[in-house]
Amino acid sequence: MNTTRLEAFSDGVLAIVITIMVLEIKVPHNTEPAALVPLIPVFLSYLLSFVYIGIYWNNHHHMLHTLQRVSGSVLLANLHLLFWLSLVPFATGWMGQNHRAVAPAALYGAVMVMAATAYFVLQEQIIAAQGPDSLLRRAVGRDWKGHTSLTLYLVAMLASLRSPAIAQAIYALVALMWLIPDRRIERVLSD
Amino acid sequence: MNTTRLEAFSDGVLAIVITIMVLEIKVPHNTEPAALVPLIPVFLSYLLSFVYIGIYWNNHHHMLHTLQRVSGSVLLANLHLLFWLSLVPFATGWMGQNHRAVAPAALYGAVMVMAATAYFVLQEQIIAAQGPDSLLRRAVGRDWKGHTSLTLYLVAMLASLRSPAIAQAIYALVALMWLIPDRRIERVLSD
Amino acid sequence: MNTTRLEAFSDGVLAIVITIMVLEIKVPHNTEPAALVPLIPVFLSYLLSFVYIGIYWNNHHHMLHTLQRVSGSVLLANLHLLFWLSLVPFATGWMGQNHRAVAPAALYGAVMVMAATAYFVLQEQIIAAQGPDSLLRRAVGRDWKGHTSLTLYLVAMLASLRSPAIAQAIYALVALMWLIPDRRIERVLSD
Amino acid sequence: MNTTRLEAFSDGVLAIVITIMVLEIKVPHNTEPAALVPLIPVFLSYLLSFVYIGIYWNNHHHMLHTLQRVSGSVLLANLHLLFWLSLVPFATGWMGQNHRAVAPAALYGAVMVMAATAYFVLQEQIIAAQGPDSLLRRAVGRDWKGHTSLTLYLVAMLASLRSPAIAQAIYALVALMWLIPDRRIERVLSD
Repeated sequence: MNTTRLEAFSDGVLAIVITIMVLEIKVPHNTEPAALVPLIPVFLSYLLSFVYIGIYWNNHHHMLHTLQRVSGSVLLANLHLLFWLSLVPFATGWMGQNHRAVAPAALYGAVMVMAATAYFVLQEQIIAAQGPDSLLRRAVGRDWKGHTSLTLYLVAMLASLRSPAIAQAIYALVALMWLIPDRRIERVLSD
Repeated sequence: MNTTRLEAFSDGVLAIVITIMVLEIKVPHNTEPAALVPLIPVFLSYLLSFVYIGIYWNNHHHMLHTLQRVSGSVLLANLHLLFWLSLVPFATGWMGQNHRAVAPAALYGAVMVMAATAYFVLQEQIIAAQGPDSLLRRAVGRDWKGHTSLTLYLVAMLASLRSPAIAQAIYALVALMWLIPDRRIERVLSD
Repeated sequence: MNTTRLEAFSDGVLAIVITIMVLEIKVPHNTEPAALVPLIPVFLSYLLSFVYIGIYWNNHHHMLHTLQRVSGSVLLANLHLLFWLSLVPFATGWMGQNHRAVAPAALYGAVMVMAATAYFVLQEQIIAAQGPDSLLRRAVGRDWKGHTSLTLYLVAMLASLRSPAIAQAIYALVALMWLIPDRRIERVLSD
Repeated sequence: MNTTRLEAFSDGVLAIVITIMVLEIKVPHNTEPAALVPLIPVFLSYLLSFVYIGIYWNNHHHMLHTLQRVSGSVLLANLHLLFWLSLVPFATGWMGQNHRAVAPAALYGAVMVMAATAYFVLQEQIIAAQGPDSLLRRAVGRDWKGHTSLTLYLVAMLASLRSPAIAQAIYALVALMWLIPDRRIERVLSD
C-alpha cells in the first residue's frame, strides 16, 4: 500500500477540520458594527487554530513524503493523530467563546499536547519503518522543535491557572515558531 | 472505469462522516472544568465511532486494492455501504447523549448491522467480479471476523434491552478486534 | 487543462452535499423508540436524495470520462450543476420535516428540474466541445432518460398541488429508473 | 514538493467552504410558499458567494498550473488565501440575513478585499519563484482585472454606508466581470 490514499484521506479530514471551525463563529442577530466586537476573541482563536492545522497539514505532508510504503502501524498512528486534531474545533470554540476562563484555555493546551504526542508517535513509527538509515530521522534530528512545543504547551496549561491570557500568548508563540518554514526535511531530501 | 474516482469519492464521504461527528460534541456554555463531565459519554461514543469509521476506511481501501475495474453493481454496493455509514453520526449522537437509554444503544447496533451487511454485499460483488480465481476470496477466506462482528452486534442489540452498558462494551470489543491490523489481504497480495 | 482537478472538486462538493444532508436528521431529545417515528419521513427523504446525488455522481463521472480537455464553458456549466445540487439538502430537509405539505414537495421538484436542466446544459457543452464525432452524443443518443425524468419532475410538481404523496412517489420512481445501471456510455466506450 | 497535494488540500477546503454556506439557508418551520420569501436575499447572497468561490477555485487552478515546485512561502501564501476565503460563509450569512443593513454589506466587502489581497500576494510569490521569465507574469500582465476588483470592493464598502443595495450591486458586477472566462493564462500556456 502506497501513501497516496492515506494522504488523500488525511487531507480530506484536515480540510474539513480547518473549515468546520468557522461554523463556531456564529452569525450575529444584531446588525450594528458593535455586534462584531464580542466575536473578536472567537475570530482570534479561529485564526490560531487555522494556523495550527495548516502547519500540521504542511509538516504531515513533508513527513509522509519520506515514506514509500504504509504499514498497519503507520496507518493506526495516523488515525490517532487525526482523532486529536478533530477535537481542535471543539477546543477552539470553547476557548473562543470564553477567552477569560481557565478551563477552556487549559483544555486547548491539553488537546495540543495530545496532538503533538500523536504526531511524535507517528514520526517514530515512520522512522522505525525506514530502518537504521532513516531519512526522516536525519531530517528531524533530535527534534528540538517538537520537544520545545510540547514543553511550551505544558507551561501554558500551568500558566492558564493564573492567567488564561498568558496561556493564549504561549499558544500563539508556538504557532509563530512553526510558521517559520521548517526546511529540515527539504534539506535532507535535496542532499 | 478504474477505481481511482470511486476511492476518491468514498474517501471524501468517509472523511466528512468521521469529522462531522465531532459537531455532536456541543461546546458547553459553562466554563467550569465540571462542564466537561457530562460530555464524557459523548466523547467516548465519538471515539468509538471514529475507530469504526477509521477501520472501515482502512479495510475498504485494502478491498478496493484487489479490484481493477469498477462495474455498475460494485458502484451501487459501494453507495449502499456509504449510505449506512453516513448514519453513524446520528446514531453516535443519540447514544452519546443518552448512554443509559435502551433505544439509542440498540439503534447503534442496528446501524452497525446494516453497515456490516452492506460491506459484506460489496465484498461479494467484488469477489463475483473477480471470478473463480478471486484474490479477495482467498484473502478473506471464510471471513470469520466479519461473521463474528455481525453476531456480536446482534448479541449487543439484545443485551441493550437489559443493559445498554453491556451493549456498549460489546461495541468497543468489536472495534478493538478490528484494530489489530488485518494482514489477510496484504499477505495474499504479497504471495 | 485536463479533467482531473475538475473531477476532484466536483467529487468533493458532491461528497459534502451527500453527507451534510444527514445533519437534517436531528438527534431526538427523547430516548423512547417512539422518538424515531417522526423521523421516518425525514429518513426516507434523506434516502431519496442520497440516491439522487449518488446517481448524479456516477453519471457525472461517466460523462467527464468522455472528455479530454476542459474548456471555460464546460467549467462554468459544471459549477452551475453543482450549484443546484448544493440546494438538494435544503429541499430535502424542508420536505422531510413536512412531508404532507404542498410547497416543500413542489420545491423539491423545482430543484430537481433545475439540476436536471443544468446537467443537460453541461452535456450539450461537452458534446459541442467534442465536435460532430462526439462520443458522448453517440452514448446518450436522444437522451430519453433525461427527458423522461424532466417530464416526470414537472408532472410531480403539478401532482403535489393535489397530493404531496403522489409527487413523492414519482420522485422515488425516477430515482429507481436511474438506479438501473446506465450502460450507454460504457457500451459506446468499449466499441 | 510538487503541486498535487497543495491542490488537493485547496480543493478540499474550497469544496467545503462552497458547500457549508448552504447551511445558512435554514429550513423554514412554516410550509407555506410564502415561507420562502424571506429566504430570497439569503439565497441571492448564497448565489453571489458560490460564484465568487467558484471563480477563485478556477483561477487558483490555472495559477497553480503554471507552477512546478511549491516553496515554503507559496505554501504560506496559499494558506493565507484559504483563511480569508473560509470567512466567506460567515460574511455571506450575515449579509443574507440582513440585506438592508450597512455593517454586513461593508463586512462582505472587507472579506473580499482581504481575499483579493491574499490572492495577489500568492500570485506575486509564484511570479517571484518563477524568476524573470515568469509564465504567470506574462499571463496576468498588469493584472487590470485584479486591480479593478480591489478598487470596486473598496468603492462598494464606501457605498454601503449610503446604500447596502448599491454595494451589493457592485459585488454582483465584479462577480459577473470574472464569470467571463479569463483566457490570459490559457493563451500564454498554449503559445
